[in-house]
Amino acid sequence: MRRNLLLLDDIVSSLVVYWSAMFSGFNVCLLLACFLLSIFPAASSQTLAERLGYAPGTKLIIVHADDLGETHAVNAAATKALQAGTINSASLMVPCPWFPEIADYAKSHPDADFGLHLTLTSERVYYRWGPVAPLDKVPSLVDTNGYLYHDWEEKQHVNPQEVETELRAQIERALAMGVRPTHLDSHQYRLIMTGKELFDVMLRVAHEYKLPIFVTRDWFANYPYLQQSLGPGDIVLDHTVTIEPEVPPEKWAEFYINALKNLKPGVTEFVIHPGFDDEELRAATRERSTWGSAWRQRDYDFFTSAQFREILAQEKIKLITWRELARVSTGK
Amino acid sequence: MRRNLLLLDDIVSSLVVYWSAMFSGFNVCLLLACFLLSIFPAASSQTLAERLGYAPGTKLIIVHADDLGETHAVNAAATKALQAGTINSASLMVPCPWFPEIADYAKSHPDADFGLHLTLTSERVYYRWGPVAPLDKVPSLVDTNGYLYHDWEEKQHVNPQEVETELRAQIERALAMGVRPTHLDSHQYRLIMTGKELFDVMLRVAHEYKLPIFVTRDWFANYPYLQQSLGPGDIVLDHTVTIEPEVPPEKWAEFYINALKNLKPGVTEFVIHPGFDDEELRAATRERSTWGSAWRQRDYDFFTSAQFREILAQEKIKLITWRELARVSTGK
Repeated sequence: MRRNLLLLDDIVSSLVVYWSAMFSGFNVCLLLACFLLSIFPAASSQTLAERLGYAPGTKLIIVHADDLGETHAVNAAATKALQAGTINSASLMVPCPWFPEIADYAKSHPDADFGLHLTLTSERVYYRWGPVAPLDKVPSLVDTNGYLYHDWEEKQHVNPQEVETELRAQIERALAMGVRPTHLDSHQYRLIMTGKELFDVMLRVAHEYKLPIFVTRDWFANYPYLQQSLGPGDIVLDHTVTIEPEVPPEKWAEFYINALKNLKPGVTEFVIHPGFDDEELRAATRERSTWGSAWRQRDYDFFTSAQFREILAQEKIKLITWRELARVSTGK
Repeated sequence: MRRNLLLLDDIVSSLVVYWSAMFSGFNVCLLLACFLLSIFPAASSQTLAERLGYAPGTKLIIVHADDLGETHAVNAAATKALQAGTINSASLMVPCPWFPEIADYAKSHPDADFGLHLTLTSERVYYRWGPVAPLDKVPSLVDTNGYLYHDWEEKQHVNPQEVETELRAQIERALAMGVRPTHLDSHQYRLIMTGKELFDVMLRVAHEYKLPIFVTRDWFANYPYLQQSLGPGDIVLDHTVTIEPEVPPEKWAEFYINALKNLKPGVTEFVIHPGFDDEELRAATRERSTWGSAWRQRDYDFFTSAQFREILAQEKIKLITWRELARVSTGK
């Protein structure tokens, strides 16, 4: 299971082999390489947390806000929470109308940990967006009115080449508008959970742009192709926590408190959806309560609360970001 | 100046000539046609108001809300005011993200007087939209990030064929989404005031879809090509009133009251911009105060006030819509 975490070891061993060959001749090189390879098992047993420089058993979390750019109410809540410091990472939806607002914020806050929330759907009813690529280049992604599909039917054919075109268009627009993303993830997990073909597209694009993608070991059982496609250079988080519609509003804080108190060692991403429950967000999400306006206000409230800070201290949980993970990935 | 208002006369005379020729032979036809032509001057002197069935000297206004679809705050304010009845006409921006909300309202309120506010710019900074046509079909309309231009530079070449492509795409999307527009007008007057070439594109598309366009005689002096291009079948309003940035907020009501008290006979369109001064609209328009959030709240407040209703009654001003004007235009 740890074979995906060997990048640093590989880089070290490759360099040693190379320099040894250059300066000391083949035999010395061979001996040194053999020696280094002999200590590999110890190195490869390092967890992601250890590779980040933490003691074994440390509990690390990324508190990650999804969907920035989708509405102003989400941008406003997320940026306020980021400034307060307990929400410490987020990803941006490039095709959405409020992307310029959050791109402008990203430019003036270059240390903010912002990824791109690669978006292939426009899942609301009264408020919608189309693709970034020209409509006629991505016909399998858009409905008859030119919006990204509200949903994907079971047997709908989404063309992987068109997905690649759209992902590249989203990343290029973000770069052109001054965003320097630290990672990539997938809106509604479409690129993760639709099948190997689409996951491979995301992975190929991520490699090309040298960006880590959000994948957790928790998903391997249900989506074994993830593990098959990931290589030794890819970061894999240990766990993820996200609240589900089954949790009633009055149990919201309780759910997160339980998750934090029972947190396993390693790196866990809390995928949350903060937003302000105002006129705009209520109108934009009014067709259903899931991931709606009140839901997002509850997420904002918990993750900016004193209670959340206290539990972090009490449980000795540390916050990390994708920026640090990316450094592990690239060895910088 | 009245030559644009001769449609009904022309239709009557053409029909008489045609039927006379059919049933009575050429000579009788010629006599009858001569007789009818001899009474023409009286018929052609009819004003638009008279053609609508009102006594000479009647003061008629359309209270027209612009920019529906642009934000939720604009949709919410406009639909509330439409239901109250004093704002009685509006036009919709098809490329904007909240268009689906107002299209849904239009479908469930088929009697609402909704036109299309043909949109070729995305004039805000933090909240933006692209064209409806595929990006690669309208390159002269979009900036490097794929949004409709924020503004048009003096010497910028906007390709009229691409404008036509985009206008057709906007109309087709509106039709596909169940909107049955009563008229067309132009966001920021781009199609009216940029030159004959773009106006002719708008006019050609309007004729094809059999929709009247908002043009007023007030503009003829500055834009003589309007009058040159308009034909006898085109509706031309007598006047328009719209508030300008020079009016200070505390003089808002006074400006409109003066305009209403000094209203000339004929058909006048009040072009207004109602909206609710809330978080969304403040954020979307924050880079400048002109046509901003407070501006739009002031428009909403005046045109839904008891004072406005009282002045209408006091000055014997009647409300009409584009639906009635379209009937005059098509003779239905």
